[in-house]
Amino acid sequence: MKNLLDNPQTLLIDIQGYVAYITLHRPQAKNAMNYAMIGELFDVFTALKSRPEIRAVVLSGAEGTFCAGGDIKEMRTSPVPASESACNLDAMLQAVNEAPQIVIAKIEGAALGGGLGLVCVSDVAISSETALFGLPEVRLGIAPSFISPYVLARIGLTRSRELMLTGRRFKGAEALNYGLVHQCCPADELDNAVAAVLADIQQCAPGAIAAIKALIFEVADKPPEVTLAYRADLLNALRAGEEAQEGMQSFSQKRPPKWSLKDES
Amino acid sequence: MKNLLDNPQTLLIDIQGYVAYITLHRPQAKNAMNYAMIGELFDVFTALKSRPEIRAVVLSGAEGTFCAGGDIKEMRTSPVPASESACNLDAMLQAVNEAPQIVIAKIEGAALGGGLGLVCVSDVAISSETALFGLPEVRLGIAPSFISPYVLARIGLTRSRELMLTGRRFKGAEALNYGLVHQCCPADELDNAVAAVLADIQQCAPGAIAAIKALIFEVADKPPEVTLAYRADLLNALRAGEEAQEGMQSFSQKRPPKWSLKDES
Amino acid sequence: MKNLLDNPQTLLIDIQGYVAYITLHRPQAKNAMNYAMIGELFDVFTALKSRPEIRAVVLSGAEGTFCAGGDIKEMRTSPVPASESACNLDAMLQAVNEAPQIVIAKIEGAALGGGLGLVCVSDVAISSETALFGLPEVRLGIAPSFISPYVLARIGLTRSRELMLTGRRFKGAEALNYGLVHQCCPADELDNAVAAVLADIQQCAPGAIAAIKALIFEVADKPPEVTLAYRADLLNALRAGEEAQEGMQSFSQKRPPKWSLKDES
Repeated sequence: MKNLLDNPQTLLIDIQGYVAYITLHRPQAKNAMNYAMIGELFDVFTALKSRPEIRAVVLSGAEGTFCAGGDIKEMRTSPVPASESACNLDAMLQAVNEAPQIVIAKIEGAALGGGLGLVCVSDVAISSETALFGLPEVRLGIAPSFISPYVLARIGLTRSRELMLTGRRFKGAEALNYGLVHQCCPADELDNAVAAVLADIQQCAPGAIAAIKALIFEVADKPPEVTLAYRADLLNALRAGEEAQEGMQSFSQKRPPKWSLKDES
Repeated sequence: MKNLLDNPQTLLIDIQGYVAYITLHRPQAKNAMNYAMIGELFDVFTALKSRPEIRAVVLSGAEGTFCAGGDIKEMRTSPVPASESACNLDAMLQAVNEAPQIVIAKIEGAALGGGLGLVCVSDVAISSETALFGLPEVRLGIAPSFISPYVLARIGLTRSRELMLTGRRFKGAEALNYGLVHQCCPADELDNAVAAVLADIQQCAPGAIAAIKALIFEVADKPPEVTLAYRADLLNALRAGEEAQEGMQSFSQKRPPKWSLKDES
Repeated sequence: MKNLLDNPQTLLIDIQGYVAYITLHRPQAKNAMNYAMIGELFDVFTALKSRPEIRAVVLSGAEGTFCAGGDIKEMRTSPVPASESACNLDAMLQAVNEAPQIVIAKIEGAALGGGLGLVCVSDVAISSETALFGLPEVRLGIAPSFISPYVLARIGLTRSRELMLTGRRFKGAEALNYGLVHQCCPADELDNAVAAVLADIQQCAPGAIAAIKALIFEVADKPPEVTLAYRADLLNALRAGEEAQEGMQSFSQKRPPKWSLKDES
């Protein structure tokens, strides 16, 4: 099976069946996001577009830290790359956001600045109680500029403005409360929480997952009438397909569908 | 007084003074939404547009279940009706959403798929603690296609993507936490909770209710400058009207306005 | 130093270093908002646009009440001013919303109608547990017309429709839960809570504060691709500036930046 990326320098990539485990791996810099990491994440998520057998991605950071933010040293010396570039932070965030897989973010330790931005584009975010979140840009004299649309879409205007403007840090329970993550648990239960989400995903039809991801971004922020034909056509197409025929038949027959990966006990 | 609908097959309809009680009634199928029910709901809410004496609608399901979702048996055999059709799910959801009355959803038991969609277009949703919510479409190989804009508008992108993609079920307390419902209470307090909302509504001016419903959908998702003239004109028109003149005068005189239905004690 | 406003009739204004304290001051009318107050707030926040040395505004009400709403007596007799007018409520709310300072609302007592609208355009809102919120317009026969876009942007469609339509009142803990305010505390801890936010702001770069305020309203409600060039240009401009150069250098050197007002202990 083809690798998602040859010789990654800033990521660890491990494919186990229907799950791709992607680990931010610059432990000497608390997994700070430099242009190389942005580029590699963009390339991996671009490769994932044509890997329908992969249903889920688990995104985490090496050695107990998710991602400490942008790489300050690099920032001080290099300009922001041109927006056309493959290593553009915005293009990377969009690629993660709209991946046809379910992207699970597993967050321990710091998730600051761009690291918090990466949390904002996941489908299911699970945080350790001791994880540390924040948008420290304002305290450096800069702004959470690239990530701002994703932060606003994730937690709304009200909480975004407070957090962007004060730069204050907060932990997992607050991140749950603000709608930044979907679950918060003790650090030693993180792996179990991820496993429980993967068990749910095993019951989900892979084609439907990809179709729903596309649906969400097609309909979000548009008046319903604009997307009515899209929604009707999508539902008709799905219903006529093999996955749905099997799904509805197995439901009527009270058995798991053939595309389910779930061991029924 | 004219009926809202003659000979409904899938609904029970009971008008008591200023309140219309509408009960989804296909108990043999856990009130699953078939095309007939979608059509009848559309027709009832269309009729309600010209019934200004009705200030509130209480929407519930028969025999302890709100609505188990779409009718799978019908789905397997019939295509989605053309979008022009009166029994179109989207048109029905819009009619409920934008009704000139205050729509109260009272939820016991299952509220799944399209049933959850119906909760999303209510003005005040009150759930039993034991109610069961979920978007199981992904586990059938289909998608919550028609209802997606209403789910996104109700609970936001962050929670919508998790729930649409995993299909997991959740109860009333979580529904409250996600912003899907406004209140959650023990099953035996549901009727009292609905009565308390109706008591509030008795103090509200009926013309103002309809004007505010229209206002909400006029201004939502538009920049303020686009709706400034609308908002100024609306307020001027309301202030000059009898309802507001009586409302402001009675406020100054510390007495209930004539249009209030509230017994003051 | 130039006053923000000469001879205000409805406000108390006190500038202390980098903070402007603005107090709604019509205690005989529970600080109800009349056209004079709307006009003076508009003028003060317009003046604040050219006062970059002021980093924060603390907005509160005199004598234990934030603002009881619109001035009913004036409303009964006067039409809504033309939208061109400087005393227009919408223009005032926009001026507060988009001020280049961090606007802190400190709420005790009533924050009703237009007073609740003013809370909606603050960056950090801190409420006393005993504060009383509500949108009573529907019970007067009118509508929260001018403030509706700001209420919707603040707390979302789901909670807005319930509160606008029922007119019910609620306290600080619920306001926090609905996302109307960012913090809720006992009345006697309000001043400490405001002081803690100001301490955070002392660590924030003043130019970055203004840039982030502008960024938020530039990107909100637009697809990311529309604002990509804006965001890239903004970040490049900030990074090249003195504030950011000092900010990033001081971060690397583990010392406070020169523009910080914070006493490090």
